[in-house]
Amino acid sequence: MKLRTLVISLLSIGALVTSFNASATNEPIQPIQAVTPKNPDLVELGKMLFFDPRLSKSGWISCNSCHNLSMGGTDNIPSSIGHAWQQGPINAPTVLNSSMNLAQFWDGRAKDLKEQAGGPIANPGEMASTHELAVSVLNSIPQYRAKFEKVFGSDKVDIDRVTTAIAAFEETLVTPGSRFDKWLEGDKNALNKQELEGYKLFKSSGCTGCHNGPAVGGALYQKFGVHHPYKTDSKIEGRKSVTGKDTDLNVFKVPTLRNIELTYPYFHDGAVWTLEEAVTIMGKLQLDRDFNKKEVDSIVAFMKTLTGKQPDIKLPILPPSNNDTPRPQPF
Amino acid sequence: MKLRTLVISLLSIGALVTSFNASATNEPIQPIQAVTPKNPDLVELGKMLFFDPRLSKSGWISCNSCHNLSMGGTDNIPSSIGHAWQQGPINAPTVLNSSMNLAQFWDGRAKDLKEQAGGPIANPGEMASTHELAVSVLNSIPQYRAKFEKVFGSDKVDIDRVTTAIAAFEETLVTPGSRFDKWLEGDKNALNKQELEGYKLFKSSGCTGCHNGPAVGGALYQKFGVHHPYKTDSKIEGRKSVTGKDTDLNVFKVPTLRNIELTYPYFHDGAVWTLEEAVTIMGKLQLDRDFNKKEVDSIVAFMKTLTGKQPDIKLPILPPSNNDTPRPQPF
Ligand code: HEC
Ligand code: HEC
Ligand code: HEC
Ligand code: HEC
Ligand SMILES: [Ca+2]
Ligand SMILES: [Ca+2]
Repeated sequence: MKLRTLVISLLSIGALVTSFNASATNEPIQPIQAVTPKNPDLVELGKMLFFDPRLSKSGWISCNSCHNLSMGGTDNIPSSIGHAWQQGPINAPTVLNSSMNLAQFWDGRAKDLKEQAGGPIANPGEMASTHELAVSVLNSIPQYRAKFEKVFGSDKVDIDRVTTAIAAFEETLVTPGSRFDKWLEGDKNALNKQELEGYKLFKSSGCTGCHNGPAVGGALYQKFGVHHPYKTDSKIEGRKSVTGKDTDLNVFKVPTLRNIELTYPYFHDGAVWTLEEAVTIMGKLQLDRDFNKKEVDSIVAFMKTLTGKQPDIKLPILPPSNNDTPRPQPF
Repeated sequence: MKLRTLVISLLSIGALVTSFNASATNEPIQPIQAVTPKNPDLVELGKMLFFDPRLSKSGWISCNSCHNLSMGGTDNIPSSIGHAWQQGPINAPTVLNSSMNLAQFWDGRAKDLKEQAGGPIANPGEMASTHELAVSVLNSIPQYRAKFEKVFGSDKVDIDRVTTAIAAFEETLVTPGSRFDKWLEGDKNALNKQELEGYKLFKSSGCTGCHNGPAVGGALYQKFGVHHPYKTDSKIEGRKSVTGKDTDLNVFKVPTLRNIELTYPYFHDGAVWTLEEAVTIMGKLQLDRDFNKKEVDSIVAFMKTLTGKQPDIKLPILPPSNNDTPRPQPF
């Protein structure tokens, strides 16, 4: 029942967008807006924390280890390497434009970036620390305390402030200026013929029913496998593990397609390495449509125009630990 | 015999520097000079390679993983974490100012940075790739090939060019502008009384016999344990494993003391976490001298003035892999 409603609503969205409209205002995708941080000191502190491996038990894994800002904010491996080289259960999504998500994680179990940021620090399979330990490391470092003082008005370090700062940094990780956004903003030469055809097909076939808005995704939960099931070895259940509902089995947050050329491999199990294969699967499973090679190639060409300007990051210089700092436990 | 000569020569150097000389030109330590890269494109390419985890088998470990430029060019753990979380045999030295070393590695087994850079990529305990694999990854990426073309005049990627570029980047990783260098350059207020006393003691007691020159080390090999043996669980033999000579047992390249506050833990086994303990050990083992707490504190205070301006690094944006790129093998 639910499924039929979904399919019908998708079809109607598909129909709506079939009539191609050159005016960007009527497009299902909107340009990404640049972000001017309200509180640059808070953002700078968050950046330090994002890059600081001392938030992990080993002293070797930082947020940037798995969300590498040199590589599209992800690790480009099927499932993440965590503390002691544990194999993670799921592919690491990009942190780029993640502020635009309706919620965080594939299953949406964290309501926002601040709530999310506490997770990996204390996750035994990721950074394997505890909030207490991470906080006591930071508290032992006067230069950090001074930054907390400057930003929060007192030099107390606690996990709430740590995650506030990390989230503030992540909110700046947006990628405006893609060729597609230039096209949306009126530069009709920004896309070539193949890319434009790809976009038209992306709309007319119904992809924009799920992948829409400025992030070209991130705005709703949908079943992965609307028409045909996805074959995977992964035991991940999607939204079901949050809601407990059987109808939420294999329902995931629709991922952003911004910078999709950079965030391989694809799908929550990271099993698919090429965009061509990902598009073919999406067509079949979500829309029951068999794209031919030319169609696939044009959609892929369009998706590659979604790569935006990557954030300019000056590597933070982290203040050293001292005799009072709890020591890392790498082995 | 050799040992006696060494001790005598150390004592005489000690004697030479006992008469404190305020003119920087006669000091055993010289300021670090800023470096202006001759070939900025080559340096930029080297920086990309330094940060690119695709030089490793897992796709997850880059040079910067163990020589973190946010943390003094090292990993701040006793011995490094390598591929599959293998525990390395030795502490990772900083890459900062490493161009000033007479040779690379604790035992000097690589003659220069270029020769060194090939090592970790193919070391099964570090990045665990092969030169062939790393080169074929880079070769598959047109944006990399274009950079090689620009710098070397043709788009062939080979390990010789890769290590040339990495070495060129490393040569820029110098840290001028420390408070001690300001003092050397004539700013007599750059050091406080305790720091200056520490420096005088550092010279008069004979530390500068081994730790001298612009890098305050890196210029010669010396036995670790001149007067008393160093107690360690490490099986590392030092220069002996290069020369085969028994007299080279426990002989190591004298490490730089530049940025020493940042490069904890100390010694080739990384067993010592505080500078106070490192200084006490050096005094006893190398000079047969028992420093009291005040003396230790002043030498430590002096050593902390050796922290220079850390290199400004803009995080490189790495070109994505594509359908032809060999895939990482993380597990
Ligand atoms: C060991 C690898 C690893 C580390 C370290 C790590 N992450 Fe993640 N991150 C992941 C994986 C895997 C997921 C997906 C988990 C899921 O959805 O169940 C994820 C999800 C996220 C998301 C949600 C994105 C989205 O679109 O839903 C954000 C935001 C994020 N991480 C930020 C961080 C921050 C901030 C840190 C450091 C405090 C961090 N991560 C550390 C691997 C890692
Ligand atoms: C019914 C909703 C829906 C429709 C229609 C849909 N998608 Fe998706 N898409 C999803 C969901 C949900 C996922 C996440 C699947 C998973 O769990 O890995 C996804 C994943 C993707 C991915 C991989 C993203 C990543 O980072 O791993 C790509 C690429 C993609 N879709 C492209 C398309 C294209 C192209 C179309 C149209 C042919 C399309 N999608 C139609 C819901 C949809
Ligand atoms: C897995 C950790 C790890 C990785 C990855 C790694 N190194 Fe090292 N590096 C070390 C260790 C440990 C040593 C000391 C080895 C020895 O002396 O025997 C070292 C030594 C060095 C030295 C010598 C410094 C000195 O003072 O003697 C340089 C230079 C260096 N590495 C540069 C690099 C470059 C360039 C890369 C990437 C191509 C790299 N390292 C990758 C751990 C690592
Ligand atoms: C005879 C030569 C010699 C003398 C004299 C000497 N050192 Fe050293 N120093 C070394 C060597 C060799 C090492 C490396 C030991 C090892 O293998 O870890 C070293 C290591 C160190 C380290 C640790 C560096 C690091 O990065 O791990 C410090 C700190 C240090 N010395 C300070 C001093 C001080 C202070 C003095 C004087 C009290 C001194 N040294 C005298 C040769 C010397
Ligand atoms: Ca991915
Ligand atoms: Ca060290």
